[in-house]
Amino acid sequence: MADSLADRLLRGDKRALARGISLVEDDDPAGWELVRAIYPHTGNASIVGFTGPPGAGKSTLIGALIKHQRTLDRQIAVLSIDPSSPFRGGALLGDRIRLTEHFLDPGVFIRSMATRGALGGLAEAALQTALLMDAAGKDDVYLETVGVGQAEVDVIDHADSVVLVLIPGSGDSIQALKAGVMEIPDIIVVNKSDHPLTDTMVREIRGVLSLAPHEGWRPPIIKTEATRGEGVEVLAEKLAEHRAHVEAEGTLSERRRRNLMNEVLGIATVRLRKALEATLRDDPEVQELLDEVVARRLDPASAASTILARGAIDPSEAARPDAG
Amino acid sequence: MADSLADRLLRGDKRALARGISLVEDDDPAGWELVRAIYPHTGNASIVGFTGPPGAGKSTLIGALIKHQRTLDRQIAVLSIDPSSPFRGGALLGDRIRLTEHFLDPGVFIRSMATRGALGGLAEAALQTALLMDAAGKDDVYLETVGVGQAEVDVIDHADSVVLVLIPGSGDSIQALKAGVMEIPDIIVVNKSDHPLTDTMVREIRGVLSLAPHEGWRPPIIKTEATRGEGVEVLAEKLAEHRAHVEAEGTLSERRRRNLMNEVLGIATVRLRKALEATLRDDPEVQELLDEVVARRLDPASAASTILARGAIDPSEAARPDAG
Repeated sequence: MADSLADRLLRGDKRALARGISLVEDDDPAGWELVRAIYPHTGNASIVGFTGPPGAGKSTLIGALIKHQRTLDRQIAVLSIDPSSPFRGGALLGDRIRLTEHFLDPGVFIRSMATRGALGGLAEAALQTALLMDAAGKDDVYLETVGVGQAEVDVIDHADSVVLVLIPGSGDSIQALKAGVMEIPDIIVVNKSDHPLTDTMVREIRGVLSLAPHEGWRPPIIKTEATRGEGVEVLAEKLAEHRAHVEAEGTLSERRRRNLMNEVLGIATVRLRKALEATLRDDPEVQELLDEVVARRLDPASAASTILARGAIDPSEAARPDAG
Repeated sequence: MADSLADRLLRGDKRALARGISLVEDDDPAGWELVRAIYPHTGNASIVGFTGPPGAGKSTLIGALIKHQRTLDRQIAVLSIDPSSPFRGGALLGDRIRLTEHFLDPGVFIRSMATRGALGGLAEAALQTALLMDAAGKDDVYLETVGVGQAEVDVIDHADSVVLVLIPGSGDSIQALKAGVMEIPDIIVVNKSDHPLTDTMVREIRGVLSLAPHEGWRPPIIKTEATRGEGVEVLAEKLAEHRAHVEAEGTLSERRRRNLMNEVLGIATVRLRKALEATLRDDPEVQELLDEVVARRLDPASAASTILARGAIDPSEAARPDAG
């Protein structure tokens, strides 16, 4: 094909990028095919993860940062992950309107992705999406996720730099950092900094950071008032500094190597799990096993062993992207 | 064997229970064997999950609740999950000392389990442990986990009743509830209720709950001051009420059926993932594939497909509890 979807995407065509992401999101084999085709052209974008509790103003901050980065003529893509539980679905998507002022800018691409089914699957789709954005020539790819302490927010693990966005009142996040439940990020932003308790918050964070072991990079604490763009230039500078630091130290390639390994493992696990779920749903013999478990005659681990041992799961079947 | 570990555990022998948990935690085949033997004797305990941000006083609250339940002569077991990141490991274990006053009471069994490696594996070990505690004749099994919003705190998903413990200042958790990132629990406790902002907190929670769809059970909000035991009797009553409610509605057996399915799926997935990890670590051909991925010559999904297709993972190998 003279002008394939991959060709158009690599030229930076916005509609090709949107189409590619939809394919990946729908777990369409053409999406995996597309990622395969463009993969050699990835690795150039700076991938920045933004995390923090809901309501901290991450979308507003990203909007303000985009505005600043556009003055430097950088091409930006944003992927917002919305982890609302199904029955409240979409509550966070309302935040997306804060990014609308950039919708008409051809140098900015914004997409959101809602949690559906397995989180693992979502993380994989998100990472494939980041690869597509990278290949489409974006200089910066921003991944926005809600995180309030758990380290298994896999998406963020794949960023080159991680920004934690807090506000005065983020007591739970401070406790989570203190207790070591939340990983120390690369940059901490205290947003809504016109709040009277901002400096107390900054002091608390400083206290937590002083307890953490550190070598090399020391996470800066930046006060922002994103709605007015205050502090955003400092954030952009610190992001560039962090990027330069990890490049100089060689930790960028280390991080990326580890992340790519995890991605391969993640994709393979999701496929095996899907194959398993299909078996649990459709195989009458497996249904009988599960009834035995519910009746407390067969324990869950023995049921799992039996299902695996009888070869109900065929890994080479699971190998097909559209399996399960 | 006349007096096996299973026999002793079923008689409520504390040392047999401790030994059994160690076996499960170490992923020892004898542990899986033990769970298989005692499984028909499970299903009697009331499993209560306690979650909430670090520092909310969950351990203190559980300690106070134990004191109350012991006056009713109930046998109690507690499993505390410590999810500290490796480099800060043990920060939360300090909380365990708050439970020490019960260490000498033969009617109380307390155990903690630290996160090591895959969280999925931890969840499975925790659930097997809960089964052992149940079989050992405990009336109440309390699972304590740190959760600050993510729904994938699998352990809690396996409880019959879920208690969310907050304190005045838990702004991030309120936001997470509001945004639908955190599931609505069965009971909400506002601990440290002598804080001046307690009533504000209760009002905020009430506001969030009024927005949530509800049918049947309406989550009560209970103010406690766990260090002085205040409000703990009310908590015990509400727990009994919730238990009676889910039993009457038939939702208890529904919940348990769903949870047991998830447990089978979880155990099988963890085993497959372990087999995968072993392959990624040890197989030289797989190492070469990964090098291709890092060099951006082969995309992660194709690498995953190749690994699965060449049959490097044998599900019937993974079926053995000690595989991987």
